[in-house]
Amino acid sequence: MKIAVDAMGGNLAPDHVVIGAAQALKSFTEADSLVLLGDKSVIQASCEKLQISHQLFELHHAPEVIGIDEHPTKALAQKQHSSIAEGFHLLKNKEIRAFCGAGNSGAMQMGALFSVKPIEGVIRPSLAGLVPKEDGGYALLLDTGANTDVRQDVLLQFGELGSIYAANMMGIENPRVALLNLGKEEGRGTLFTQAAYQLYSGSSKVNFIGNIDGSDLFNNKADVIVCDGFTGNVASKMIEAFYDLLKKRNFLDDFFTRFNYEAVGGSPILGVNGNVVVGHDASSPEAIKNMILLAYRMAETNFYQKIKVAFGD
Amino acid sequence: MKIAVDAMGGNLAPDHVVIGAAQALKSFTEADSLVLLGDKSVIQASCEKLQISHQLFELHHAPEVIGIDEHPTKALAQKQHSSIAEGFHLLKNKEIRAFCGAGNSGAMQMGALFSVKPIEGVIRPSLAGLVPKEDGGYALLLDTGANTDVRQDVLLQFGELGSIYAANMMGIENPRVALLNLGKEEGRGTLFTQAAYQLYSGSSKVNFIGNIDGSDLFNNKADVIVCDGFTGNVASKMIEAFYDLLKKRNFLDDFFTRFNYEAVGGSPILGVNGNVVVGHDASSPEAIKNMILLAYRMAETNFYQKIKVAFGD
Repeated sequence: MKIAVDAMGGNLAPDHVVIGAAQALKSFTEADSLVLLGDKSVIQASCEKLQISHQLFELHHAPEVIGIDEHPTKALAQKQHSSIAEGFHLLKNKEIRAFCGAGNSGAMQMGALFSVKPIEGVIRPSLAGLVPKEDGGYALLLDTGANTDVRQDVLLQFGELGSIYAANMMGIENPRVALLNLGKEEGRGTLFTQAAYQLYSGSSKVNFIGNIDGSDLFNNKADVIVCDGFTGNVASKMIEAFYDLLKKRNFLDDFFTRFNYEAVGGSPILGVNGNVVVGHDASSPEAIKNMILLAYRMAETNFYQKIKVAFGD
Repeated sequence: MKIAVDAMGGNLAPDHVVIGAAQALKSFTEADSLVLLGDKSVIQASCEKLQISHQLFELHHAPEVIGIDEHPTKALAQKQHSSIAEGFHLLKNKEIRAFCGAGNSGAMQMGALFSVKPIEGVIRPSLAGLVPKEDGGYALLLDTGANTDVRQDVLLQFGELGSIYAANMMGIENPRVALLNLGKEEGRGTLFTQAAYQLYSGSSKVNFIGNIDGSDLFNNKADVIVCDGFTGNVASKMIEAFYDLLKKRNFLDDFFTRFNYEAVGGSPILGVNGNVVVGHDASSPEAIKNMILLAYRMAETNFYQKIKVAFGD
């Protein structure tokens, strides 16, 4: 099985990627390989400096880099030999089983949408994040930023996509799906969440448990928490901010430690024709390692094909 | 100066209200009085049980109660002699200078909208909350739940309303106003936040500093944080959830202690013809005390009139 990572992705690339990749490799089998995408000479220089043999990896030369502040769509169109564009070429051509990267997250999302493309039947692929539950494990939160303006049918699909992920990747049987709302009662929320509530109530594809609100995020009422990408982005960034505040004060127990995005590594994109994980631009080697291992597990599970099957493609 | 509180408001009313009201009275001057609204005999019985003289207060008989789960608009129309409806009658007739209550928050908001009514020029009055800043003080977050679907002109007004509150009630000179968004760059966000960004950039009424994201909520970049009521509600309930998690673990330092809504007491409604504060339904006596004192300070500042003047009414 072949997995690829953007070696130029993240504020401290390629060094953090090289270190994280070497650590991730320890969980790979002999039959697996890890492709590092980027300028070969730059990657090799980093490997040499870090005393990590570049021969551990398969290097795929991609001379261009998309900067973190570049306009995603423009940069992707103009830099066809960037590490991100090359990664999606490989994924599209089935030369790799999963692609992950901690670079320009907009470009990662655009690549997923316009290169490997949405699965037939999926209106809007979604970027998912994990929210730690106080009594163990995680809930899946989606969307966390790929889709700001969403209609009720999109909100319903997020629940379907999330359920497939929770069942196949998180081992949760019959995952409980909730709509994140500003009150628990039916009829609360925006026009779209009210309409989504009705669609969910009539759906046989998801185990819908109703509305939850912001105070329920950590209490294990739901396994899959659905909202628009604006709200989900604010919520997941608040969790990050909260972790930083805790860490600074040394207030970390088993539960609060799981607020650290590094332990998760990245956000999967659900609903495209390939396994894609988007990492955090400030990724540490530990975060990179976990991002690669998440991509590995998605490949191992044949994750995106599960969605294809469920959507009848 | 006469302030009124809904004695029947909150899960543990009237007892918590009576205790909190007696504590708040200690900060009142001789010329001030505090009106308790509710069934006189019920309030008197509570006072007797708690060994607090009911003669400390002015009791205003309101025999009906709006339950926490009742439909706000219907209940308010049907129960004209409820403590909430009576409170707004008094406020409308200028018999009191401020009204506060921790009962059905929808009914409190509906009363503000349909009884004392929005100030001329205010499209949508807003429910504001406080977010603690790590280096001291609070930022004002609005809207926190009164307005779920908002247009760009409403988002702009939230910034104007919030600036007037921050300047007059929080003592912040030339308050910095930011749009809560899913990225800091211009052009990010929903169609409405993108359009709001443009309106803000052209406005001379607010000190607009641009977009912030969820990771900036506690870091003192802004004094007034503007968002739709859906996002703001999720964010403020997450802050409550964080506080509960911290308290359970005894992880409370000076900063995290300020995550406690009890220290703030309630959320002011900005943009109606009267000073109104909405409390939390689980209010402790401490929370009730602080809600009353917030209402008192709004009355003392002539707060709602400042908005009338600013909006040219």
